[in-house]
Amino acid sequence: MIDFKATPDGLDIYFKDHLILRHTAELPCFYLGRGYDMITAYRGNYHIEDHVISRVPLPRYEIDGDTVVFSLYDTKLAVTFTVLKQRLHLSFSTADAINRLWIRLFAEPEENIYGCGVQASYFNLRGRNYPLWTSEAGVGRDKKSLMTFYADLLDRAGGDYHTTYYPETTFISTRKYWCHVHTTAYAQFDFRAPDFHELHMWDVPETMVLEFAPDYPSLIERLTDFTGRPPKLPEYLHEGITLGLQGGTDTVKRILENTEKQGVIVNGLWCQDWVGHNYTSFGKRLYWNWIWNDQLYPELDQFMASLRDKGQHLMGYICPFLLKDETLFKTAEAHGYLALNKKGQTYIEDFGEFDCGIVDLTHPDAFAWYKAHIKTHLIDFGFSGWMADFGEYLPVDCVLHNGIDAKKMHNAWPVLWARCNYEAVEERGKLGEVFYFMRAGGHGSQRYATTMWAGDQSVIWEEHDGIASVTPIALSSGMTGIPYMHSDIGGYTSLHGNIRTQELFERWCEMSVFSAYMRTHEGNRPAENFQFYHSVDTLRFMARMTRLRRVLKPYIRHLVDEAADKGLPMQRPLFMHYPDDPRCYTIQNAFLFGSDVLVHPVVKAGAVEQTVYLPKDRWVHVFSGTRYEGGDVTVNAPLGQPPVFYREDATMQDVLARMKDIDTEYEER
Amino acid sequence: MIDFKATPDGLDIYFKDHLILRHTAELPCFYLGRGYDMITAYRGNYHIEDHVISRVPLPRYEIDGDTVVFSLYDTKLAVTFTVLKQRLHLSFSTADAINRLWIRLFAEPEENIYGCGVQASYFNLRGRNYPLWTSEAGVGRDKKSLMTFYADLLDRAGGDYHTTYYPETTFISTRKYWCHVHTTAYAQFDFRAPDFHELHMWDVPETMVLEFAPDYPSLIERLTDFTGRPPKLPEYLHEGITLGLQGGTDTVKRILENTEKQGVIVNGLWCQDWVGHNYTSFGKRLYWNWIWNDQLYPELDQFMASLRDKGQHLMGYICPFLLKDETLFKTAEAHGYLALNKKGQTYIEDFGEFDCGIVDLTHPDAFAWYKAHIKTHLIDFGFSGWMADFGEYLPVDCVLHNGIDAKKMHNAWPVLWARCNYEAVEERGKLGEVFYFMRAGGHGSQRYATTMWAGDQSVIWEEHDGIASVTPIALSSGMTGIPYMHSDIGGYTSLHGNIRTQELFERWCEMSVFSAYMRTHEGNRPAENFQFYHSVDTLRFMARMTRLRRVLKPYIRHLVDEAADKGLPMQRPLFMHYPDDPRCYTIQNAFLFGSDVLVHPVVKAGAVEQTVYLPKDRWVHVFSGTRYEGGDVTVNAPLGQPPVFYREDATMQDVLARMKDIDTEYEER
Repeated sequence: MIDFKATPDGLDIYFKDHLILRHTAELPCFYLGRGYDMITAYRGNYHIEDHVISRVPLPRYEIDGDTVVFSLYDTKLAVTFTVLKQRLHLSFSTADAINRLWIRLFAEPEENIYGCGVQASYFNLRGRNYPLWTSEAGVGRDKKSLMTFYADLLDRAGGDYHTTYYPETTFISTRKYWCHVHTTAYAQFDFRAPDFHELHMWDVPETMVLEFAPDYPSLIERLTDFTGRPPKLPEYLHEGITLGLQGGTDTVKRILENTEKQGVIVNGLWCQDWVGHNYTSFGKRLYWNWIWNDQLYPELDQFMASLRDKGQHLMGYICPFLLKDETLFKTAEAHGYLALNKKGQTYIEDFGEFDCGIVDLTHPDAFAWYKAHIKTHLIDFGFSGWMADFGEYLPVDCVLHNGIDAKKMHNAWPVLWARCNYEAVEERGKLGEVFYFMRAGGHGSQRYATTMWAGDQSVIWEEHDGIASVTPIALSSGMTGIPYMHSDIGGYTSLHGNIRTQELFERWCEMSVFSAYMRTHEGNRPAENFQFYHSVDTLRFMARMTRLRRVLKPYIRHLVDEAADKGLPMQRPLFMHYPDDPRCYTIQNAFLFGSDVLVHPVVKAGAVEQTVYLPKDRWVHVFSGTRYEGGDVTVNAPLGQPPVFYREDATMQDVLARMKDIDTEYEER
Repeated sequence: MIDFKATPDGLDIYFKDHLILRHTAELPCFYLGRGYDMITAYRGNYHIEDHVISRVPLPRYEIDGDTVVFSLYDTKLAVTFTVLKQRLHLSFSTADAINRLWIRLFAEPEENIYGCGVQASYFNLRGRNYPLWTSEAGVGRDKKSLMTFYADLLDRAGGDYHTTYYPETTFISTRKYWCHVHTTAYAQFDFRAPDFHELHMWDVPETMVLEFAPDYPSLIERLTDFTGRPPKLPEYLHEGITLGLQGGTDTVKRILENTEKQGVIVNGLWCQDWVGHNYTSFGKRLYWNWIWNDQLYPELDQFMASLRDKGQHLMGYICPFLLKDETLFKTAEAHGYLALNKKGQTYIEDFGEFDCGIVDLTHPDAFAWYKAHIKTHLIDFGFSGWMADFGEYLPVDCVLHNGIDAKKMHNAWPVLWARCNYEAVEERGKLGEVFYFMRAGGHGSQRYATTMWAGDQSVIWEEHDGIASVTPIALSSGMTGIPYMHSDIGGYTSLHGNIRTQELFERWCEMSVFSAYMRTHEGNRPAENFQFYHSVDTLRFMARMTRLRRVLKPYIRHLVDEAADKGLPMQRPLFMHYPDDPRCYTIQNAFLFGSDVLVHPVVKAGAVEQTVYLPKDRWVHVFSGTRYEGGDVTVNAPLGQPPVFYREDATMQDVLARMKDIDTEYEER
């Protein structure tokens, strides 16, 4: 399956007849070097500079069995090519002093690249360079927007097209292969050149793995065979909505009652402030000592039980940082469970007007202790789920128990944090029943993160942050093997003059019907922003949308089965099922929900119609019943009628056809 | 004088007992490589990215006489060390395919670096990386300012701390050497590391030259022995002011009369619009066909003669671009004197709503033709001087007659343009009498630019652009061997809401008394901005300031003599004459005007006093007569009393003491 073909000026390496590496003496495919970094961090935002000392091309090669040694005299890289389970493995061996590697993978000019974790700005990564480093995603994420300018100026927090909570050295090519480089060091995957992809790592990775498949669904299946897949989503998420509420037992009870009174189907409450509050200039934050605050939430245990009787669930919140000088911090510090600074003292991280210690998840005892805390204080306490927040902040200058440089553990941290939650649930025998949602990720999140959410969008309409970025996030993570994605309905970040409007909330709500599940968030500044309980109209709107979700329940169950069996994401790019249609490769603001529903969310303020591209097929527009056979079509799309189409030939055609009945059903109540 | 000293792990190279290069196998002092660039240009603003293919360290060395061959097997760089006129010359020889060189010059942690042409943001370059590429300087030049944000967003024109019209691969170290690298390729001089300066060039330069001197004045003298020095400034510039006026013969006559009526000493008029106008959204531009517009300026020749009778001079304007389809353009195109595009057609450059051709100054006939044009249409016509504008725009994708890549000619262009003007004046025998002022520069401007001006500051008070940046510009260019610097009084660029105020104009005017000469500019949007002729108060203010200048005339003449003899800049950093005072090395907003006058211009709106650092000496504050012996002193500094001090022991103490009499003199009129 591996062919080394000598060429007049070098070597071409093929795998299953696909050209993988094109090596010439003039432009070698491997470069080794040394460098040192300059990394500055501020509240999860990183400024990273590389100072390359050397970048030595390796023009010569010598083949010895399945190993090719590329070299320039005594600078040598041995690359061993092996095939395991239809996958091509490249393993690397070189001198210890080397800390920079550049690989030039063969590329075709028309090839597209997708994946690399969560990428919010551009779904197709071709034509850009992608630093891969977990961090805050950024506020605005567009150096041409004033919001980004102010976020940069005031908080160094503006971000850029590539900043992400979840980077991964894994991608899918339209040459129909997936590729994973096994490293957690800082990396840059540069997809700008027409004839190669340059994969650059700040270490020499153990291996790089590559596998071809005949079509995109099987490519995802093979990728997720490799990465692992998460447990199924709990059934109750397939209908209704989870309300993100805060303010204490009485407050959330009252809002729940009012919400249900308007016909909203509620499957649970998410009370992130079960631990109490902490007020900062950023907004309302949580009190980072992860135990029940029975002042704010008296009788929470009883309330939880009464909810469960109604088939409703309660969700909480936790992260791997502990508020300084509070009880958990003190316990952890006393046992040596916190990460240290270079002086051997407890590492204190500034989270914006409050300080925390870091649970050292590389310390087996600390890991076990925190896992036990999750078991007792979250699972046993009765939570069905929680937000497992903040995996992206591991400081690069802390000292960890396992002795590995924090710069190499930084990208590994989100997955370690995911695994801590995973094992807690697994050891309580509740996988598939209890779940948690994460924003930070890395290689392994496919298995260890029971679900992801899209992170902290701003409460705006803009392309690189806000409602419009949610679909690219779902699509790119889906192409990395993450099947379940959802987002904060209404968005989260209200800064620099952005205030959530009722319209934005409702557009976000109707879009979220077609995601892993529906969950609202009050945002960072609840009092200043629109909340659904401010408006009876919005409550009725939510009632309709949750009925729409209920109609879809059998179909959603089917998608979750597909995710469990094959890793297929619930939200898919159009080209996954229409690979012969070139237009489908360029679309990042519409998606297939499973194979039979096409959604093009409205993400423009004031819009009343939407132009949608339909690949050649027999489509029915849900709310008008109009039939289409493909092409660009414009449909009415007032609030509450998201532009959704289903395939007339769908197996579940009868289920999908019922989507239009939500108003009739409403009238009948 | 050159010592090669073997060390346990490498080689130390000394020149006159100073360590120059510290080479080890681990961290070699030379790196060779290859790369390709991506340069995008928009109206003189450049976005430059380097794609390094290889950067090969050269760990081994072999000494053969005065040549050291550094190598990694067959990648070799031969460096020949020779001494000529007390200067150390390094000449380089390597394979043709190499187009990247990195030199690591030995550095001490406390060393400061100054020069590299005009640097407006930071006088001391240590701690930063300096791309050296001639371009527009930028509007705002501070990524944290809203002005820069808008300039970037709307025109890609915001710039940054390092963007400059005049970059030069020449600097001065506080180890008391100057260094010049002989290249016009794109370069980056990186002064960030504590133990080396990394000089990076996109070619392998012919030579690098380095010379030590015992003190800073002799260092400048030796540097300008090497670079050459300009002719003396014409005497008439030493007193009075040149008025930048526009609008036609009648208008400028009327303003001149009104100005003189208030006692302003006027040495000349600068009528840049002698060619007529061109209105764009940027503002009032010139009609780029460099011939007298006798519609706008009827009887200009007679007017010029009448001025000369009064001892006053007229100045014009020219640049090396020709308005498309106009007479000069047509002539040049017909003779093949214009630069071409890759298709062999005339290269057309967009200057913002109008298009131009480029006189190909590498074509000897074109050079001669344009020089002849300057002789006849500017010198013979009667101009005493002109602005020789726009040397920084040579497009990187044009094709030149000399066959050299435009990317390598880009940085050479300003000096070629300077030489064209220089030869015109020289061949008319008028060096020292007729002069021109330039903003773009490079190695050779020291000789060929009769004077420089500081470029287009914004009409604001900010640090990186505007009035506050004028002193760093004068100091850095002075340390590059440019003795004469001045600026547009009142600033130039009025964009993004910045409007020139009366106060800004007057502060700029009082600062400019202590520069090479005083010249006003109406700015890019004359009608919207404050002009001196709007206010009788300002005219009287200018009368006082021009009297101050007249008082200084003998002293200024002395400074011009020093410039001619030794290259000493008129405006000097404090450390030049107080090298033992560490504070003096950190000051970039105050300067010595010659050795005996210290000026700390007020560059803050609303300020009425100024704190000034005085090195240990006997100083007299001009306007109060108070004596100081050094340290931080705060003096009254209302408008019209710039914070100026003179040395009590100055040779011209009697001249300098008269500065305080300008008001008495006024009363006596």
